[in-house]
Amino acid sequence: MHNYFMEIAINEAKKGIGAVNPNPLVGAVLVKDNEILATGYHEFYGGPHAEVNTINNSPITEGCTLYVTLEPCSHHGKTPPCTELIIKSKIKKCVIATLDPNPLVSGRGIKQLQEAGIEVIVGILEKEARDLNKVFFKYIENKIPYTFIKVGITLDGKIATKAFSSQWITNSLARTKVENYRNFFSGILVGANTVIQDNPSLRCKTVGNRNPYRLILDKDLIISEKYSIISNNTDQKTFIITSDKNINLEKFQFLRDKFAIKFITFSESENLKDILKKIGSYNIDSILVEGGSSVISSFFKENLYDGGEIMIAPKILGDNLAIPFLSGFSPLLIDEGITLENIKINLYDNNVGFEFYKEDGCLPV
Amino acid sequence: MHNYFMEIAINEAKKGIGAVNPNPLVGAVLVKDNEILATGYHEFYGGPHAEVNTINNSPITEGCTLYVTLEPCSHHGKTPPCTELIIKSKIKKCVIATLDPNPLVSGRGIKQLQEAGIEVIVGILEKEARDLNKVFFKYIENKIPYTFIKVGITLDGKIATKAFSSQWITNSLARTKVENYRNFFSGILVGANTVIQDNPSLRCKTVGNRNPYRLILDKDLIISEKYSIISNNTDQKTFIITSDKNINLEKFQFLRDKFAIKFITFSESENLKDILKKIGSYNIDSILVEGGSSVISSFFKENLYDGGEIMIAPKILGDNLAIPFLSGFSPLLIDEGITLENIKINLYDNNVGFEFYKEDGCLPV
Repeated sequence: MHNYFMEIAINEAKKGIGAVNPNPLVGAVLVKDNEILATGYHEFYGGPHAEVNTINNSPITEGCTLYVTLEPCSHHGKTPPCTELIIKSKIKKCVIATLDPNPLVSGRGIKQLQEAGIEVIVGILEKEARDLNKVFFKYIENKIPYTFIKVGITLDGKIATKAFSSQWITNSLARTKVENYRNFFSGILVGANTVIQDNPSLRCKTVGNRNPYRLILDKDLIISEKYSIISNNTDQKTFIITSDKNINLEKFQFLRDKFAIKFITFSESENLKDILKKIGSYNIDSILVEGGSSVISSFFKENLYDGGEIMIAPKILGDNLAIPFLSGFSPLLIDEGITLENIKINLYDNNVGFEFYKEDGCLPV
Repeated sequence: MHNYFMEIAINEAKKGIGAVNPNPLVGAVLVKDNEILATGYHEFYGGPHAEVNTINNSPITEGCTLYVTLEPCSHHGKTPPCTELIIKSKIKKCVIATLDPNPLVSGRGIKQLQEAGIEVIVGILEKEARDLNKVFFKYIENKIPYTFIKVGITLDGKIATKAFSSQWITNSLARTKVENYRNFFSGILVGANTVIQDNPSLRCKTVGNRNPYRLILDKDLIISEKYSIISNNTDQKTFIITSDKNINLEKFQFLRDKFAIKFITFSESENLKDILKKIGSYNIDSILVEGGSSVISSFFKENLYDGGEIMIAPKILGDNLAIPFLSGFSPLLIDEGITLENIKINLYDNNVGFEFYKEDGCLPV
């Protein structure tokens, strides 16, 4: 029955997708005599933890078993430690899917519970629970956003014709999946050329109520208020990432003061990883890299992606001048190319997605 | 029960794959009181028809129901008409999946059976039975081989690095499917450059006992006995298709006399369709086009393919100089590209095949 209840806790946790970053997704279930008394999850960043919501939802707690997807916290943060509440509520047994990834506190919550006489079981659906928080685990460890590349291509690997036409390559089912990604990640990153060619909104139109941060990699500050990503910034979520060399101060100040654009600047000596660190410093724990070709190529070149999905439509451009999704490599042998790993194939009617990860396990999207 | 028995007849028919071309695949089942008395199929080109094998396999025939995937023949060909045997055998009922596609004889077999007092039912699993003989139906109608393109590509649509390295892009499961194709089609077509780069055997190594015809499109007669396709021609199944302009007569005669190479020549005024007609005149009812880039591009340019499968491996070359599987087009809008239709997605572990057809329905491979 442990797996059964933990799966319910995991599904609870998923209800927080898009709302809790950079906190982890956590779900919990309170059970007595194999009957579910309450469920709960971490609902929004800074809000009560899953354990608190679950315990508060329950008519009784004494003698119950608490299933929780992540080790309960034992420290005073934005909220009091969950271990205290669990002990106070006279919970009899606590079943935990996975430990806290922070080595400084990992195991402490369990120890506190055990010292209070609560039986603790750890490791039920551990892999699933770790997959749930791939983003959290990476970000908590090195403060660099989890980076996921999404690209829709033709069968010959193109993202646009030579005239930069790109609408639409993939079908509506695949594009709905992209909406799910936009809801899942804290930020979307595109290059300035993509803004200029497509004038995209980079909003999440169909899922949830929240838009991700919009991050424009624009080294030479070439975009302007002509593009909706600048002019339509009432939620103040647009960042421009630009070089501090030869910066056009007048334009910088104009965009900042008139359109509330935020800027992240980088020096000549800084690389893409340094830029990611700066993005991470804004509590942005994860980014969806949506293009175009040169931005995607940079992430592959610098080996800075954690995963991605390449969506393929049964269309062919057959033109060497059409825009490839990736370029700048020069392998002589097949094995010198890039081999994607930990592949999961997704079917969208007659479109196919190759989902891939540096490390085993899939995002809960 | 009709569908049940007809499905068995269709599976019988498939046992003839690779052996009956350019005849159709046909299977039959003889049933009495819902019990199968005998099954049979058309086993090899020129051999007895499925009906004959089935009836001869059965202890009794009087009062039985015969299920057959194609309308029984009513004319004297290589073998006597099946309708005569069916009538003579006192079969009571004949259930037929689909009519003979030849408009000159279509329906005649049924008429003969009905006139002899046999109850005839037509159209059980008709689509499946037609799919079984997509090749036969096309070839009988216009004597041009059914043309199927097979290509294994990287995620960015390449078939080789710029140094022409191509081994291996797809995985062993996908390559096993290629063996099935080589067993299914009467001929394999490749360009001279593919022979020069890869020195392929173009044999079917793992399925069945028969090799397809090897057709080399070599306009300028540049290949030689250096390549195994020429030197290893003991089965005399290698054809070179070459231009009759500036032909090197000495080489022509040498390859013909010393290695038993057959030649198909074409004049400057003849196009790819004319060449296909000449191939068809050798009883080659179907060809698997295996590459390389310029040959595949020609078939797309001239719109002369009936279907194909594009197999994709999760590898990326990321090099504009790597060899694309298709080129020579120049679309400005996405919709001006080629859109493949009637898609069936095949999974080979972490490789994916996009199987496509001009017309609805899949080959029985």
